[in-house]
Amino acid sequence: MKSFVKYSADCDFPIENLPYGIFSTKNKPEKRIGVAIGDEILDLSAIANYFDGPLLKNKQDVFRRDYLNDFMSLGRPAWLEARLKLQELLSASNHTLQDPEIRSKIFVTQKDAIMHLPAKIGDYTDFYSSLNHATNVGIMFRGKENPLMPNWKYLPVAYHGRASSIVVSGTDIRRPHGQTLPVENAAPVFGSSRLMDFELEMGTFVGGPPTNLGDIIPASKAYDHIFGMVLMNDWSARDIQKWEYVPLGPFGSKNLGTSISPWIVTMEALEPFKVPNMIQDPTPFPYLQHDESCNFDIKLEVDIKTSGNMVTTICRSNFKYMYWTPRQQLAHHTVTGCNINPGDLMGSGTISGETSDSLGCLLELSWKGTRNIVLKDGTVRKFLQDGDEVILRGFCVGEGYKIGFGSCAGKLLPPSELDI
Amino acid sequence: MKSFVKYSADCDFPIENLPYGIFSTKNKPEKRIGVAIGDEILDLSAIANYFDGPLLKNKQDVFRRDYLNDFMSLGRPAWLEARLKLQELLSASNHTLQDPEIRSKIFVTQKDAIMHLPAKIGDYTDFYSSLNHATNVGIMFRGKENPLMPNWKYLPVAYHGRASSIVVSGTDIRRPHGQTLPVENAAPVFGSSRLMDFELEMGTFVGGPPTNLGDIIPASKAYDHIFGMVLMNDWSARDIQKWEYVPLGPFGSKNLGTSISPWIVTMEALEPFKVPNMIQDPTPFPYLQHDESCNFDIKLEVDIKTSGNMVTTICRSNFKYMYWTPRQQLAHHTVTGCNINPGDLMGSGTISGETSDSLGCLLELSWKGTRNIVLKDGTVRKFLQDGDEVILRGFCVGEGYKIGFGSCAGKLLPPSELDI
Repeated sequence: MKSFVKYSADCDFPIENLPYGIFSTKNKPEKRIGVAIGDEILDLSAIANYFDGPLLKNKQDVFRRDYLNDFMSLGRPAWLEARLKLQELLSASNHTLQDPEIRSKIFVTQKDAIMHLPAKIGDYTDFYSSLNHATNVGIMFRGKENPLMPNWKYLPVAYHGRASSIVVSGTDIRRPHGQTLPVENAAPVFGSSRLMDFELEMGTFVGGPPTNLGDIIPASKAYDHIFGMVLMNDWSARDIQKWEYVPLGPFGSKNLGTSISPWIVTMEALEPFKVPNMIQDPTPFPYLQHDESCNFDIKLEVDIKTSGNMVTTICRSNFKYMYWTPRQQLAHHTVTGCNINPGDLMGSGTISGETSDSLGCLLELSWKGTRNIVLKDGTVRKFLQDGDEVILRGFCVGEGYKIGFGSCAGKLLPPSELDI
Repeated sequence: MKSFVKYSADCDFPIENLPYGIFSTKNKPEKRIGVAIGDEILDLSAIANYFDGPLLKNKQDVFRRDYLNDFMSLGRPAWLEARLKLQELLSASNHTLQDPEIRSKIFVTQKDAIMHLPAKIGDYTDFYSSLNHATNVGIMFRGKENPLMPNWKYLPVAYHGRASSIVVSGTDIRRPHGQTLPVENAAPVFGSSRLMDFELEMGTFVGGPPTNLGDIIPASKAYDHIFGMVLMNDWSARDIQKWEYVPLGPFGSKNLGTSISPWIVTMEALEPFKVPNMIQDPTPFPYLQHDESCNFDIKLEVDIKTSGNMVTTICRSNFKYMYWTPRQQLAHHTVTGCNINPGDLMGSGTISGETSDSLGCLLELSWKGTRNIVLKDGTVRKFLQDGDEVILRGFCVGEGYKIGFGSCAGKLLPPSELDI
């Protein structure tokens, strides 16, 4: 497949990708839906009338919104119709949009664009679905004998997260204040977190029409409700988390900010990179079973950029290390009858590989602060320092092309002055 | 204060109350904002132009929405202006709305109204702030020595809940399917929950303008962000909860449905019923300290109505048993920088009193299933049976009047047929 838009073979956004996002520009501050191609963005609000297929011709308004939820709600057949139409319009052999005057009106250079959250995220749920990550955390806090909780291999453990504090890549994150317990069995102290961490995750956006309270979506039927994926950094204040999380789970240690990449890569673009699901033992209950693969070979990397703009890649992981698939996550999410809406976000949980350089957070990389991570500028880290920028990247490697996620970046700012 | 609308002294909605809700009628299905008075509803969309005070005259459109968020966002001075205007318009001495023809256009009888959720709830958080409840649960599951977790008296423990599954009073709730562990150390089983429970809670609606990520609202300044309160039933599948909740907290056991009463009683209406905050030892950190009372004498009752329409009051509790105040909850919610929005909902956690008939859930009332609760129809309960309707009621008793919350009701339906 070849587009008239020019890009190199290692570009994240070839015509095979076509991820959706919300952008604005300095000259035109209205938020609108765009599709990334090469270094450019095709403005869908400007070409909505070209979606003239049977499913979209009466729904063109979904491309004129400042969020993707309405498009997401239409379901997979409409998503496929949109994708085929975009590939047709962008192909080298199609001249509809190639006239220089038309082109100048409907394309924006990515570097001129301001990216926004791609959807109104009604609810956000964070899972804990990487076997290596859960095992490592279990070993650190409970020892080698029984690192996994008894429920872990029976259900995809998850907790409800905070939707309001999800921000788009590029948003700075402040080191939080909070309570911690530096000395066991002593009194807690109040101050800024000393153990700030990132978590390398991916987020899955829910699509399809809203479901009703009481509806169950088994894993075998869950694919129709999965729109696409983004990179996600679930910033975590480990010292606050440790003190607060019993018995109801993480709270303030997580709602200080969760960053996602701006471009939603669709499941259609990821299709060629399917790999077998991880073998699950014990066999999950029927509502969690699905035959088709819903696992993907997505290479994931984490960079830390320090104050001097020196970049060190500190982790190379892969989405394929997920034990529970997005289908299983959705099935478990709805099994008790929870209703879901297009634009809901499900985080994977930290994705750790099998080797010491593939661990998806500093808690694991520094093994609870017992190992130094040496950066290129010669400084060492156990946890994040103020001014560190954390950059997640993700991509699938095809024959002669990449399907990329772009990046999910955020800089850690020093704590705010307290006025209490 | 006397209104031209007639009601008896034990009416929940006198002119001193004036709670806000969203209603529609069969003849006019558009959702609109109303204020309850007596047995009637004053349709604010029809009288929006009467709000001609300095803060509201240019904001009258907030009364023409189908949700309260925009009105909530205006802040306390505007809420006060609206309240005074409503009391003026509804007073017996004011004839503006008393003309029979006008009256017939702007009032609706409550029994003809369909009530809806009062706000778009962006995020919902559930706290765990009743000392008696936390102590009882601790004794049941961890023994008498250390019933409270070490963090409990230092911070208001909370978890993020599911906003999508919050429903308005009157919505039926289905007994959920899910995984449970009937036999310790054996394999879990899949089926419908056997231990369905209610939780008697109150919910606090956040108001004021949205805050920014990173903003901290100390308890001393939190009152400006508290709009009003509702009754809340946090339905809970205890057997599912027990198996799923380690280590990240309750998930599917709670997102099967959370019911709230339709009328938001404002803090202004509750003002006369303030009682001293509970004495806190240890002294909380400064961000959690506030001198003014933010505790209220709100009598709470739970009825179970069984299939034969026989009603038994099984619990009489009181909001005043809260250890942590709504101000402290909000302060703790934002201390790590979490941003809040008008329409966010904070649940109190189950509110249990000091006596065995004041416990706010069946888990406590039946003491983990070891005691029978005898209903008026002669049947007994340890947990809920299909067909049981749970009805929460709440009210403050003033001199010659009540400030009532109405009721929060929901019937438990049998589990759905599984198609997996």
